[in-house]
Amino acid sequence: MVRKMIAVIGGSECDEKGIELAEKLGEAIAKKGATLICGGRGGVMEAACRGAKKFNGLTIGLLPSLDKKDANSFVDIVIPTGLGYARNFIVAQAGDAVIAIAGSAGTLSEMAIAWFSDKPVIALESSGGWAKKLAGEAIDSRRTDVVHSASTPGEAVEIAFNVLGWE
Amino acid sequence: MVRKMIAVIGGSECDEKGIELAEKLGEAIAKKGATLICGGRGGVMEAACRGAKKFNGLTIGLLPSLDKKDANSFVDIVIPTGLGYARNFIVAQAGDAVIAIAGSAGTLSEMAIAWFSDKPVIALESSGGWAKKLAGEAIDSRRTDVVHSASTPGEAVEIAFNVLGWE
Amino acid sequence: MVRKMIAVIGGSECDEKGIELAEKLGEAIAKKGATLICGGRGGVMEAACRGAKKFNGLTIGLLPSLDKKDANSFVDIVIPTGLGYARNFIVAQAGDAVIAIAGSAGTLSEMAIAWFSDKPVIALESSGGWAKKLAGEAIDSRRTDVVHSASTPGEAVEIAFNVLGWE
Amino acid sequence: MVRKMIAVIGGSECDEKGIELAEKLGEAIAKKGATLICGGRGGVMEAACRGAKKFNGLTIGLLPSLDKKDANSFVDIVIPTGLGYARNFIVAQAGDAVIAIAGSAGTLSEMAIAWFSDKPVIALESSGGWAKKLAGEAIDSRRTDVVHSASTPGEAVEIAFNVLGWE
Repeated sequence: MVRKMIAVIGGSECDEKGIELAEKLGEAIAKKGATLICGGRGGVMEAACRGAKKFNGLTIGLLPSLDKKDANSFVDIVIPTGLGYARNFIVAQAGDAVIAIAGSAGTLSEMAIAWFSDKPVIALESSGGWAKKLAGEAIDSRRTDVVHSASTPGEAVEIAFNVLGWE
Repeated sequence: MVRKMIAVIGGSECDEKGIELAEKLGEAIAKKGATLICGGRGGVMEAACRGAKKFNGLTIGLLPSLDKKDANSFVDIVIPTGLGYARNFIVAQAGDAVIAIAGSAGTLSEMAIAWFSDKPVIALESSGGWAKKLAGEAIDSRRTDVVHSASTPGEAVEIAFNVLGWE
Repeated sequence: MVRKMIAVIGGSECDEKGIELAEKLGEAIAKKGATLICGGRGGVMEAACRGAKKFNGLTIGLLPSLDKKDANSFVDIVIPTGLGYARNFIVAQAGDAVIAIAGSAGTLSEMAIAWFSDKPVIALESSGGWAKKLAGEAIDSRRTDVVHSASTPGEAVEIAFNVLGWE
Repeated sequence: MVRKMIAVIGGSECDEKGIELAEKLGEAIAKKGATLICGGRGGVMEAACRGAKKFNGLTIGLLPSLDKKDANSFVDIVIPTGLGYARNFIVAQAGDAVIAIAGSAGTLSEMAIAWFSDKPVIALESSGGWAKKLAGEAIDSRRTDVVHSASTPGEAVEIAFNVLGWE
């Protein structure tokens, strides 16, 4: 059966608060039985995967490089793309919904990609960075309903499930 | 823990013999506990996924399109790349080994990609097509040991496990 | 000799003011002898190419599709990528500098890509859209000098030449 | 006006004979007024660009890396893709026809890509390598007319122009 998939985006460098939120987010995704997909590296990505594995969730990492060893140690399924940052496109596309934590320009590009793909984006406002700046903003006047704002990891996952009509 | 991954490549159109071999191949991969990754479409890909699901294997499909609905119904994890045939690169890279069944030009390109990535390629000789033509051939004089030839699906999986040093 | 290349990013849909600015931008790029690279489609991209051809500039279009016929009629060199929106990455990388006009989420993603690639981005503030919103903003605290704001097309090109140390 | 484009594919390492043929091929393409597109690196690619520049041809290089400095010194338009070997797909797509010289697995993959894209492929038989092995072969029974064999660079360009109906 097709797995429910949630993409987590956020930088490989992140402050302690972002890391904590990312870990809680991974836990929340796994508890709801969804699969977590991300860029497979450190920082937000590693913390989210670590959280998911605590609850026996399945984790997927789409690496920019061709070397499977570049994945963090909480990734179950390592997919080395060799596409560099263009792999951000695939991360954004692969999630049924995309949850953003903190983040700088790389995360912003992924949020923008998800937006113009009409994919639900949930910004974890409390994490700061671009997730905060864009939370609730109508990035494109034609798509004002695409962007959602959450204040906790649990709320972010709940919004994703609601928007997608999942149980 | 990082999953063992076997990529299966082969055309979306295929004769009956190729389909049967692909299904057996999927079964053999699942029985050994490996994850099957493929292009997610019909023909060889669908048959291999169907075989894997019979034995409760995990299946991943990297689609050329952006529409998750384009996946065959035996794919658990659907990754829509939007890259068109360039997704062939990622399929070839994602497997720890690549097993080819029958196939025309698309399959040949994937075999060539795996070769120049120094990834073990096992051609299922009995399936015909390019898999047969290239079985055992030294595609590049510097990499004569990369290409392997198998006569049954079970043997193909065994070769993959041996070459990779897996139990 | 390696050509000087300026990437122009902006939407395929755009109001009249953006179109006028884009055409002037194309003219300014061609007059300075630089090559214009863009996504090859309509709207801002077509207007910029049209402007460049008035002054005999060279124009390159990187299409999302595989069909060369999808290019606007002012593109000299048509490169069909088949990568969908992932071609945005290449557009942003191919310019020595990137100039943004108006634009919605697609343009925002390209600006963000240019930013995290440490490539000079010049936002044509007067054109509105995301170009305006991000003009002068420090998108990432580590890269505060990367973003430039221009009020006219001519000024945008001049900033690009200055930043790059071109005559 | 849209430029006529010929893609040249062949390895970055090549024997002297292949280099000579590649240079002559670049000359022949430029003399006929076509634009040469290639992977932008050394070996066959550099020799072909060098030949084209002797006759004032325009040369384009699609690099695997993100660093424009990786281009050979005869490339006019440097497009750094950051896609690694997946840039092979774009090289094959960007030519209206594809001419292959010598080559190992990388070249074979590009020939196969051109084939399944129904793009005319001309293999320079005299250069050896995969170009020779596949010259004239019906790589896929459904597309027996796609592959052409040429014995000299001039003949290869002439076949391309004939097949495409160019003057």
